[in-house]
Amino acid sequence: MEALRSFIKNYTGLSNHEWATIQQSFVRKEIAKNELILEEGQICRSFYFLESGLLRYFYHIDGEDLTKIFTIAPFCFTSRISFRNQSPAKENIQALENSIVWQTSYKQYRELEKLACWNRFIHKLLNVIDEFAEQEMRQLKTLTQEERYRWLTDNYPANVLQKIPQKHLATYLGIAPQSLCRIKNNLYKNNRS
Amino acid sequence: MEALRSFIKNYTGLSNHEWATIQQSFVRKEIAKNELILEEGQICRSFYFLESGLLRYFYHIDGEDLTKIFTIAPFCFTSRISFRNQSPAKENIQALENSIVWQTSYKQYRELEKLACWNRFIHKLLNVIDEFAEQEMRQLKTLTQEERYRWLTDNYPANVLQKIPQKHLATYLGIAPQSLCRIKNNLYKNNRS
Repeated sequence: MEALRSFIKNYTGLSNHEWATIQQSFVRKEIAKNELILEEGQICRSFYFLESGLLRYFYHIDGEDLTKIFTIAPFCFTSRISFRNQSPAKENIQALENSIVWQTSYKQYRELEKLACWNRFIHKLLNVIDEFAEQEMRQLKTLTQEERYRWLTDNYPANVLQKIPQKHLATYLGIAPQSLCRIKNNLYKNNRS
Repeated sequence: MEALRSFIKNYTGLSNHEWATIQQSFVRKEIAKNELILEEGQICRSFYFLESGLLRYFYHIDGEDLTKIFTIAPFCFTSRISFRNQSPAKENIQALENSIVWQTSYKQYRELEKLACWNRFIHKLLNVIDEFAEQEMRQLKTLTQEERYRWLTDNYPANVLQKIPQKHLATYLGIAPQSLCRIKNNLYKNNRS
């Protein structure tokens, strides 16, 4: 669980006493590859820390999965609006590989909000997530699918990209799998020439 | 300025004393149609309340304006990340019609954060904005341009939609103006048949 402590320390200092309170609020869980952590329509009742592994958020529309975003360890995750409002989630969360998560319940999370260091941590974490979301929105609005793929290869670790099935990468980019193949081939040709 | 007070009251109660403090932190400004309130690269130094009028946020990419989102009065606005971090903005904000805004400086905003009612207001407002952003992301990922246009016509007041130039509506939907014409004609035909 030291990974969560290190993760929080990237955002704020915390005393041993504060860490003890946080630590006892989380329980460890192993998630198998392809397991659904949350299904659309369910209420997200936990806030999680992804210690190791890889997740995808997706929408299920007309029998098709459309990838919203990926979460790479180490990072915290939840279905933000569903968790905050304790309302049905409008997204699904799935593990793309065997993952280790630490989870705390909504009730315990509210207890953690009595700690100043926890609130500082969450405040800064939400700012980082906000910046990710803004970047994602800008990319969706301004980049072509090829440019978005190139951005991914420039910014995601290669070993992470390799773990993402091509069909999920394609729906993340909003293209057909064949188009993703063409984009990859074009980039490969351009890099060689 | 009563409009701002009413707007805040939708989110939280506030005493006459608190309102007096808020009121004296804001100054009124008239913005002419097409005027740029913020340009990409500038630091957004104000937090605003749009009392009347209509705005668009846009990115300027390779000589082309791409509309990110519209803001309809009454609502608060700023360039959130630029304002929070006092860093260069990655977006432009423009009035699409003559507008009346109330603005407060970054320094005054930080002073307002000493008021519990202000923090409650901002906290709830940010949650609403977060839900808008999530909805926007879901639409971008899951709807066709025609479905997004239909959603706009179902959810935006008709008199607001009429004020938005077609070229901005087209870049908001991510399509060429001719495609927007085709979509509108198709919808018109379907509605008549």
